[in-house]
Amino acid sequence: MYNEKAYALGANRSCIRELFEYGKARSAIVGAENVFDFSLGNPSIPAPAEVNETIKALLEDTDSLALHGYTSATGDLATRKAIADDLNARYGTAISPDSLFICGGAAPELVAVFRALTVPGSEILAIAPYFPEYKPFVETTGSVFKVVPPDVPEFQISLAEVEKQISSNTVGIILNSPNNPSGRVYTKETLVALADLLTKKSTEYAHPIYIISDEPYRELAYDGVEVPFVPSIYPNTIICYSYSKSLSLPGERIGYIYVPENATDSKALYAAIAGAARSAGHVCAPALWQKVIARCAHLRPDLKAYDENRQLLYNGLVKAGYTVAKPDGAFYLFVKAPGGDAKAFSEFAKKRDVLLVPGDDFGCPGYFRLCYCVSYDTIARSLPKFEQLIKSY
Amino acid sequence: MYNEKAYALGANRSCIRELFEYGKARSAIVGAENVFDFSLGNPSIPAPAEVNETIKALLEDTDSLALHGYTSATGDLATRKAIADDLNARYGTAISPDSLFICGGAAPELVAVFRALTVPGSEILAIAPYFPEYKPFVETTGSVFKVVPPDVPEFQISLAEVEKQISSNTVGIILNSPNNPSGRVYTKETLVALADLLTKKSTEYAHPIYIISDEPYRELAYDGVEVPFVPSIYPNTIICYSYSKSLSLPGERIGYIYVPENATDSKALYAAIAGAARSAGHVCAPALWQKVIARCAHLRPDLKAYDENRQLLYNGLVKAGYTVAKPDGAFYLFVKAPGGDAKAFSEFAKKRDVLLVPGDDFGCPGYFRLCYCVSYDTIARSLPKFEQLIKSY
Repeated sequence: MYNEKAYALGANRSCIRELFEYGKARSAIVGAENVFDFSLGNPSIPAPAEVNETIKALLEDTDSLALHGYTSATGDLATRKAIADDLNARYGTAISPDSLFICGGAAPELVAVFRALTVPGSEILAIAPYFPEYKPFVETTGSVFKVVPPDVPEFQISLAEVEKQISSNTVGIILNSPNNPSGRVYTKETLVALADLLTKKSTEYAHPIYIISDEPYRELAYDGVEVPFVPSIYPNTIICYSYSKSLSLPGERIGYIYVPENATDSKALYAAIAGAARSAGHVCAPALWQKVIARCAHLRPDLKAYDENRQLLYNGLVKAGYTVAKPDGAFYLFVKAPGGDAKAFSEFAKKRDVLLVPGDDFGCPGYFRLCYCVSYDTIARSLPKFEQLIKSY
Repeated sequence: MYNEKAYALGANRSCIRELFEYGKARSAIVGAENVFDFSLGNPSIPAPAEVNETIKALLEDTDSLALHGYTSATGDLATRKAIADDLNARYGTAISPDSLFICGGAAPELVAVFRALTVPGSEILAIAPYFPEYKPFVETTGSVFKVVPPDVPEFQISLAEVEKQISSNTVGIILNSPNNPSGRVYTKETLVALADLLTKKSTEYAHPIYIISDEPYRELAYDGVEVPFVPSIYPNTIICYSYSKSLSLPGERIGYIYVPENATDSKALYAAIAGAARSAGHVCAPALWQKVIARCAHLRPDLKAYDENRQLLYNGLVKAGYTVAKPDGAFYLFVKAPGGDAKAFSEFAKKRDVLLVPGDDFGCPGYFRLCYCVSYDTIARSLPKFEQLIKSY
């Protein structure tokens, strides 16, 4: 006797994980150099050298009990202050450390925010294409998960579709920009139009509709594209940030939630998020990592390698005849599947040792995702394979 | 508009936290040396030197991407193997690494297990005195939280009371030994008798009743007292372990769940726990700490300082006329409140700058908890205060 929903989540691996495991098994047979695995979004740029140097310094200059001890549940004040200072310097804001909640990465942050917003009958919207884990995260809290269909082929946000999905039960809408899986950045124009719609609907329904801005890829943008700071456009925005990609620390589980001071019910919402985190077993974010962030919040990733990969793969695919969404950010390319059936094309490619993820699980059939955080050499050698695939399919 | 239960949990600090904050504020006025704060269970023995040495070694010998990257959700195989090896050497077991799930400390582990066991109408029992967070953890999953009254003054387990609380809806019972707050260790005799009762009841109700064994204090036992390995007595035992106290790493959030291979539905239950963790935002336990544990799973704490504190405080209190539960383990003393009202006595003591936690929140009114992970000197200087308190109350 056990919880069937939890069992289903634990027993059924995601499609991405399945592909990744297949790739490892296949590599053992034909050699790793002959498997072109574009399935998993695992950073391929190491953490900035300052990160490990900071750990060494902390081991020297900080008392062991203080270094490894409990922090307050909201996070060390020094950490919250360093993050607030960095954000204020970049965005011209006046964020207080007291509006930041240090947490164990975007996943538990999103769950805490969804739970804090959940009331009887509440609905939370995601915009396709979206990160597949949003669905179990929302549904675990008791809210209904609703999907706004994708804005093909631009992968901005279709306001008409948002308006169709929104209702008096809507308490929040999840944004993820730069986007996984499309690699697109929502423009300021898109966000202002969305903000106007949400403001109108909040007035109509007499309750706030929050944006939940999932921002692990915030620092990963190319060609000088601006990633707008969403709370500056729409104050009822709750940010869930992670250092997983920006500092290449995905396994370490460190990030923060920001509840703007001028958001509706700001203090109460912050308390509800803290309470939701507490009920999920949050005690504090990993203490050593909090202290690293207190000294490293100003660091930015060196995107050179990702950018070179992006250009090589994008140009190669376009030349081969693929239709690819313009890749502004993150480390994904979203490609129209030849023939229109991404699952079938993915299976076809898999048999030829090219691993790509069909967009169906992201709420966007007909496209597939390529993750280009692999070696430059892998991409260079993959291009003839991609040419063959589109020709022979 | 926000979730009221989450808000209540976030807005209302625990009694322990309130006392701790009061102590800090009071210290600023009268001087830290004049405030005797026995409120918070924060380890006062630093982590073994090998822990920080291992971090330094890992920074030298492990590639940054591998060191800080995602691990599998269940945890690095090397970590699970090191823990299994250590347990097998100590307990003569044959635990497989595949039955261990590495997680971020006892709190999220308990939540994952409670969720995995929760079915419509299910009830989970705790034995008073119990760690207060069990209640929100259980209730968040949708199970009903029921309390087995304390076995005063021995603080073992009253089987008659367990039998009164158990029903066909009972899916689990939480054990915590060495116990917070009583400092008592459940004897093998106690556990065998409980196992017999649970086996009988499982047969009667035709479904397993699992023990959820919350073991952050497992290594903290004194005077050679044995802390029995519960799965060896009752196979339907799920262990939630933490290195917070055993290696003095409370802020780092690292521990494991063990589902015995011979537990009923073992594989499915493990999957349900993994799924429950996933739905709460578990991606993996902090990667650096997993790699530290892979090399440090065999380390044990040096209990000398705690033991000296324990003896000094216990003997001093008994001499002053207090009735104290025999302190076998953890770093708590559980003391009968003079006059019988622990809240009133706690308030009286607080006015005289002695901070102790009334047992009411632990489901055990009439007693108060002292945490002796403070300096030896603080305890020595507190004894005349305790004498005055009992005399003047």
